[in-house]
Amino acid sequence: MELNEALQQLETLQKKMYAYNTALSSLYLDSVTTAPGDTAEGRGVAMGILAGESQKLMTDPSVGNLLEFLSAHSQELTFSQKRQTEELKRDYDQLTRIPADEYMEYTMLTNEASDVWHKAKETDDFELFRPVLEKLVEFNKKFAGYYDSTKKPYDALLNEYERGTDMEYLDRFFGTVREKLVPLIHAVGQAPQIDDSFLHRHYPIEAQKKFSDYLMEVLGLDRNHCTIGETEHPFTLEFNNQDVRITTNYMENNVTSSMYSVIHEGGHAKYELGIRDDLQYTRLAGGVSMGVHESQSRFYENLIGRSRPFIEAIFPKMQEFFPEQLSDVTAEQMYRAVNRVEPSLIRTEADELTYCLHVMIRYEIEKQLIGGTLAVKDIPAVWNRLYEEYLGVKVPNDREGCLQDSHWSGGSFGYFPSYALGSAYGAQMLRNMEQDMDVWGPVSRGDLTGISAWLKEKIHQYGSLLEPADVIKNACGEFDPTVYTDYLTDKYTELYLKR
Amino acid sequence: MELNEALQQLETLQKKMYAYNTALSSLYLDSVTTAPGDTAEGRGVAMGILAGESQKLMTDPSVGNLLEFLSAHSQELTFSQKRQTEELKRDYDQLTRIPADEYMEYTMLTNEASDVWHKAKETDDFELFRPVLEKLVEFNKKFAGYYDSTKKPYDALLNEYERGTDMEYLDRFFGTVREKLVPLIHAVGQAPQIDDSFLHRHYPIEAQKKFSDYLMEVLGLDRNHCTIGETEHPFTLEFNNQDVRITTNYMENNVTSSMYSVIHEGGHAKYELGIRDDLQYTRLAGGVSMGVHESQSRFYENLIGRSRPFIEAIFPKMQEFFPEQLSDVTAEQMYRAVNRVEPSLIRTEADELTYCLHVMIRYEIEKQLIGGTLAVKDIPAVWNRLYEEYLGVKVPNDREGCLQDSHWSGGSFGYFPSYALGSAYGAQMLRNMEQDMDVWGPVSRGDLTGISAWLKEKIHQYGSLLEPADVIKNACGEFDPTVYTDYLTDKYTELYLKR
Repeated sequence: MELNEALQQLETLQKKMYAYNTALSSLYLDSVTTAPGDTAEGRGVAMGILAGESQKLMTDPSVGNLLEFLSAHSQELTFSQKRQTEELKRDYDQLTRIPADEYMEYTMLTNEASDVWHKAKETDDFELFRPVLEKLVEFNKKFAGYYDSTKKPYDALLNEYERGTDMEYLDRFFGTVREKLVPLIHAVGQAPQIDDSFLHRHYPIEAQKKFSDYLMEVLGLDRNHCTIGETEHPFTLEFNNQDVRITTNYMENNVTSSMYSVIHEGGHAKYELGIRDDLQYTRLAGGVSMGVHESQSRFYENLIGRSRPFIEAIFPKMQEFFPEQLSDVTAEQMYRAVNRVEPSLIRTEADELTYCLHVMIRYEIEKQLIGGTLAVKDIPAVWNRLYEEYLGVKVPNDREGCLQDSHWSGGSFGYFPSYALGSAYGAQMLRNMEQDMDVWGPVSRGDLTGISAWLKEKIHQYGSLLEPADVIKNACGEFDPTVYTDYLTDKYTELYLKR
Repeated sequence: MELNEALQQLETLQKKMYAYNTALSSLYLDSVTTAPGDTAEGRGVAMGILAGESQKLMTDPSVGNLLEFLSAHSQELTFSQKRQTEELKRDYDQLTRIPADEYMEYTMLTNEASDVWHKAKETDDFELFRPVLEKLVEFNKKFAGYYDSTKKPYDALLNEYERGTDMEYLDRFFGTVREKLVPLIHAVGQAPQIDDSFLHRHYPIEAQKKFSDYLMEVLGLDRNHCTIGETEHPFTLEFNNQDVRITTNYMENNVTSSMYSVIHEGGHAKYELGIRDDLQYTRLAGGVSMGVHESQSRFYENLIGRSRPFIEAIFPKMQEFFPEQLSDVTAEQMYRAVNRVEPSLIRTEADELTYCLHVMIRYEIEKQLIGGTLAVKDIPAVWNRLYEEYLGVKVPNDREGCLQDSHWSGGSFGYFPSYALGSAYGAQMLRNMEQDMDVWGPVSRGDLTGISAWLKEKIHQYGSLLEPADVIKNACGEFDPTVYTDYLTDKYTELYLKR
């Protein structure tokens, strides 16, 4: 084979993968936005086949040969071509270890599981979901062996979502979190509570939609390349660096619910929209890991969006959108209200301080589930016990307990920890950013362009061109969980414990 | 090859085609509903690749061999398998007969033509479009030979859109139409005009949306299998017999625009939703032809939706949705208003009576164009002359004249006649239905279930299992255009010429 020919094949292969991914994303987007209710079956058939074709393409022996050839000529490749080859080779090795029929069966299972989970959650019926969840756990245990048989199963799964992490890394992280934050949360719980009642006045959806438009503008999101839609669970879906969709969910009696969804998903969107053009339609054209992705969304949501300078900057505009609701409120009251801490049942509604503990509970359960020391049937009991132990809340039912998240129904085990890691990485990015530039002056004027530029330069542009660990080192330095716990301790001590 | 193995391959092939079609439909749907503005490029890359993969799949020599093998064993096949083989073989033969380089060149030409046509229409500049249109005509003449070299070129093209039709069939049809309807339209034009001014009062979109929901219910469209969305140009898009989407377009000052879009597209949707389960994911799982599809949409839109009993049935509900707008209107006034005849320039806005003549004009022009007796440069003059002759309207410019439709720019010559045939088939279906059951009693009570059942039994269930001609014979008997012209003559004589 000639090198030129091989590079041509490399490009074609990646473009085809892009096309299949685009098709699957489009069908997924449709399914959660506009598709009629009883249509999962036909869509499942199509998605199963497309996923199968995509897998067949990636597992064809000719691809193996191509990647071998390119690896052997790595000195003659550009850095980008070399990294494309590396990542594809990793995919190839992993996928060729999963038998095609198991992969197809699994795709159909997750499609079914999503429906069953929805029904189970709606009717608060864990038993309905249990058999499907058991199958999903078994599949994932088996797949873990395909991913990396030298690792413990849960380590192999963790590595899928956040390459380079394992139980040792996370035990250290969550150990620090447990040690520093559980007492802090306890102390905060004893302090006088912040009043946020004005956030729960009646905020008409139409006005909230206009407020979303304003927030998109503040975030610097170009509406010609990023739409905002509505789904039950907000998410970001990227087609390419010119086409990203975010969604939010409006609640009439909660103005911050959608507000922080928009800022959070906006952070994800900025990452994808900031990736370099020359990486498009290649394996490197996407955020590098879940953890780094969450670092971006949570950076905007919490470190900026819940900062005093940001609230002071946007509050006059908020009063314009909601004149009646906010006429008797000050910016400082708003700042305190959006940072109210209240141990609660639902992860996605948790405040900045307790959020991490919701994740820790899921981490501990997954670790045991995949490790084989916890049976699916026992999840509800363990879940409820841990919520009481760490957060001091009693779980009244599984709907608000272990059935609340969609992740497991989608076959994602090992995904949750990346949420918490993202927050920790974000705190370190902020400290580094503060070394490089004046962060808070512009933010207090509602100007996020400097932040955007810093994040684009250090993180976004690279997509997956660099390894996750290199991106993190680039933007954070060495990982040090105490930077994160110190940040939270300072912030919430000032808010709750110094008066 | 074993027969069982071949049948397995047949199923797999068709399921893959279904998956590619589903993906392309989903991306198309997204592009006209929710995609951000500047995102065509990335989507185009994906769609081009998916369409290419789908074509590669269907033109693979192994498919040719498979279909040969199955054709040779046709006595051992079920009727459905036999028909699947026949239809796929027709697709295969056609796709493989066009030389790849010509097909590529043609694809690029139609891409370009679409842009050029948009610009030409916008700027009312036929000369801009002329050279491209000339090339399109030449290509189609040549392709006609690939399709069926034993037929005259235009007959071969007509056969692509409505198998079994040819110029002889259509000359007879349009001859009757010309003879019977041109004088009728002339007479109607001399009669006092119907007042429809109340249709153009202010009808708020929100109330119109609720009215759409009501119409969907009357049509018996299950919202769990059929959603209604909004697009500039209404359409129906079918994924499978459990998942169909229709769209409409609301105009604040025209309540019937969306009303009849919903009923028209609803008719298309009912067809697709009524197709048998055992045909799903095969080549036969879709409406059999453009003409039969239009017969269904126009049946609901005109024959039922513009009938006196239907209007009388729904009018009290209409008054509930639009109390202010319709308080001074009677059901009879509404019936007359929705049947107002007004010869006009634009086909898509034409009334039931004159619509057919818009199509006839296009038929006569295409016949001569492909037959070689009319040069592209002379289209505007002929177009304008025929509009004056048949409809009595002067065409002020090509934008509202021969540049109005997108069909030719997409390379579709021979498509238009199916619109008119659909109306004619519908009239014959109605007469046959009236023989079999009480049509108008239930309709006058807003009950369309009997009609649905009849159409499902005679037409919908078969999808493409039967040849179009057999479906039509099944539902209409022998084709007799005078049934259609008599229906129109009776209806519009009563409305306009008897007082």
